[in-house]
Amino acid sequence: MSAQNKSSRIDEWLLQKLYRAAGQPAVRLRLRNDAAEVSPKGALPVTSIVIRDRKTLFRLLLDPEAEFGDAYSKGRITLDGDLVSTLEIVYRSMTEVAHHSWYVKLVSKCMEYFQRNSLRGSRRNIRQHYDLNTDFYQLWLDPQLVYTCAYYPSPNATLEQAQVAKLDYVCRKVQLQPGERVVEAGCGWGALALHMAKNYGVTVRAFNISREQILVARRRAKELGLSHRVEFIEDDYRNISGECNAFVSVGMLEHVGRQHYRDLGSIIHRSLGKTGRGLLHFIGHNHPLSFSTWTRKHIFPGAYAPTLGEVMQVFEPWDLSVLDVENLRLHYAKTLEHWLARFGKCEQQISEMFTPEFMRAWRLYLAEAVAGFRVGTLQLFQIVFARKDCRQIPWTRAHLYTKEQHEEQETTWIHATS
Amino acid sequence: MSAQNKSSRIDEWLLQKLYRAAGQPAVRLRLRNDAAEVSPKGALPVTSIVIRDRKTLFRLLLDPEAEFGDAYSKGRITLDGDLVSTLEIVYRSMTEVAHHSWYVKLVSKCMEYFQRNSLRGSRRNIRQHYDLNTDFYQLWLDPQLVYTCAYYPSPNATLEQAQVAKLDYVCRKVQLQPGERVVEAGCGWGALALHMAKNYGVTVRAFNISREQILVARRRAKELGLSHRVEFIEDDYRNISGECNAFVSVGMLEHVGRQHYRDLGSIIHRSLGKTGRGLLHFIGHNHPLSFSTWTRKHIFPGAYAPTLGEVMQVFEPWDLSVLDVENLRLHYAKTLEHWLARFGKCEQQISEMFTPEFMRAWRLYLAEAVAGFRVGTLQLFQIVFARKDCRQIPWTRAHLYTKEQHEEQETTWIHATS
Repeated sequence: MSAQNKSSRIDEWLLQKLYRAAGQPAVRLRLRNDAAEVSPKGALPVTSIVIRDRKTLFRLLLDPEAEFGDAYSKGRITLDGDLVSTLEIVYRSMTEVAHHSWYVKLVSKCMEYFQRNSLRGSRRNIRQHYDLNTDFYQLWLDPQLVYTCAYYPSPNATLEQAQVAKLDYVCRKVQLQPGERVVEAGCGWGALALHMAKNYGVTVRAFNISREQILVARRRAKELGLSHRVEFIEDDYRNISGECNAFVSVGMLEHVGRQHYRDLGSIIHRSLGKTGRGLLHFIGHNHPLSFSTWTRKHIFPGAYAPTLGEVMQVFEPWDLSVLDVENLRLHYAKTLEHWLARFGKCEQQISEMFTPEFMRAWRLYLAEAVAGFRVGTLQLFQIVFARKDCRQIPWTRAHLYTKEQHEEQETTWIHATS
Repeated sequence: MSAQNKSSRIDEWLLQKLYRAAGQPAVRLRLRNDAAEVSPKGALPVTSIVIRDRKTLFRLLLDPEAEFGDAYSKGRITLDGDLVSTLEIVYRSMTEVAHHSWYVKLVSKCMEYFQRNSLRGSRRNIRQHYDLNTDFYQLWLDPQLVYTCAYYPSPNATLEQAQVAKLDYVCRKVQLQPGERVVEAGCGWGALALHMAKNYGVTVRAFNISREQILVARRRAKELGLSHRVEFIEDDYRNISGECNAFVSVGMLEHVGRQHYRDLGSIIHRSLGKTGRGLLHFIGHNHPLSFSTWTRKHIFPGAYAPTLGEVMQVFEPWDLSVLDVENLRLHYAKTLEHWLARFGKCEQQISEMFTPEFMRAWRLYLAEAVAGFRVGTLQLFQIVFARKDCRQIPWTRAHLYTKEQHEEQETTWIHATS
């Protein structure tokens, strides 16, 4: 047997090992220059994943999730086929087998420690992602810069329509009344706070530790003439003080960390008046699962998406009633499809802002999220909760879906404040 | 100081102690013959709770919940005022203070052991409540004998309308399709199973360990000509076998016991096809809490109403997605108001079936439940869940509230099977 032949046998054996570890998905695995290849039996694969060298192959075997992200960003892995559909295929096959090795578990634990969400740690974690310049996000988000799952009343609504629909859906779920005080924890660039103040006649104190986002939000409040009704505060949710009628948080819980759900609950408990209510909106999982170490290193440091069971630590110690939970994962898949498509359309402009590696990493992050929400490895939960003595508990949920009632509500408010 | 005076001082001291332990509710506490009395300061109380003797007072101090039930059933405690409103007042004040003594905790633990829900234990527990003769339940339930929370599309719907609406709401929540197979765990007298088969064209295997209920359910299936589509099986949920498209359970989880949620989950996992979905409907709590020892001794042996956090043990180990959670506690308060009013109207007939003590115990159980759901010490959860690969995940929940769509769905089915 020649040395070349032997080497190619080893490559094939390694590829096979990797292929089985991924649950034998319907994709072709190839080492560059056709040194070795593994194809699924039966159905023809639509995509090939091409691995540049044996070193990458070794690394994939040691820590597949971390190395896939790294190698894809650095061009050591390429795909000939659609990124999202390939990821979907792999995710589906992986759920059948995926068990993390002791090595991956150790790396994951260490990372959790170094990225812990202390007051200072949270600031560092958040700024890494959200303090990227706003021009970048403006390229591919909707004009209001809503960087969370949208709500599509029908699947063919536009992203803009769906984001406005989401903002309004949240307001109706917590049944805002004119003159009420709202606290928002983690307010992004301020779209929800401004929507609530403008359309529901409430006053809002909105918290965020991303300086960049807070500055933009304040400017917008000024432009909209809403500065007297919406206060944007650069501070951690743990420092929220004062009383409110409603407590909302959209897309922050992922950054709270599972050690701190009770802390968040105590803040809600302290802030909410005796008849208050609120809403949490967050990415979740069906069973306890960490984000990949790659995602936590390059995209969302310190992030964790809880199960519903885990998140009940926010409510149960304080006797808060859960009124309504809705799973909107298909809406997040659609939202992310829009973002990814827009991202793709302005790669030229993005390449002028960031390195090619950054761009490939972000494309992968968005594609992974589309695939995750489509396949169901990721969930999106909206939880409405209330004090036992809350007087805004709706009799049924029909009011959320009856257009007339909603318009009537808005009219009532206009009369009440004019 | 005369002996009588001294004795009355002791009584008053004991009454005061009891009154403080109950969180100083706005009711008057009286020992019979006006031997002693405690009244709230300020507002005039609307009700008095009259305790017949010092022995009862002692027992109330030792184990308030158990003795209140016992003494009320045996006439050693009487009320001059509305039972439900008095309980509401006491519940509201108790939530501020209630901590169980070591004695109550010990009794509670022992009871949990002796009433454990083994296969045999469950049978014994269930038969004590549900094998009471059906004539009794017919006196105060709706004609279909639906013994779970109804759904009132509007608060002034009748009990009959609301029970039918609930049955249909459950079917629409799990999106039943003609020809599908459904498993129902804990089917009562069969109303839901029959409704599903009749109106949604599915076949149902419905399980129950109450012999009395199963016999009635089978007779009804025969009368309605649905015996070929609905099979009523006298067996435990742990013995369910075979595959189904939808798994529903309405009002059984309370009898499963918190040690067995994982078992129930494994049965759901085993029964549900790869694209299946289902619904659980059950009484719950905001935080972990056992039913009073009185309730478990005299009304529902072995029962436990979980928090949402606890119940996630059914879903999380099997990677089932929670799609929708709705809290219907105000609907259960209303349902129970109807039951209690009907119960009151036929006390004459009930007294011919049972002892006065039984009747007072059941009146108290219904009244306590009305008060509990009104005040929020009890919750009612409906959870819709699904496999990740389920194809019946609705885009939004609007279809549950659009009458036209629902009628259209029924029409479709009629065409499909005619």
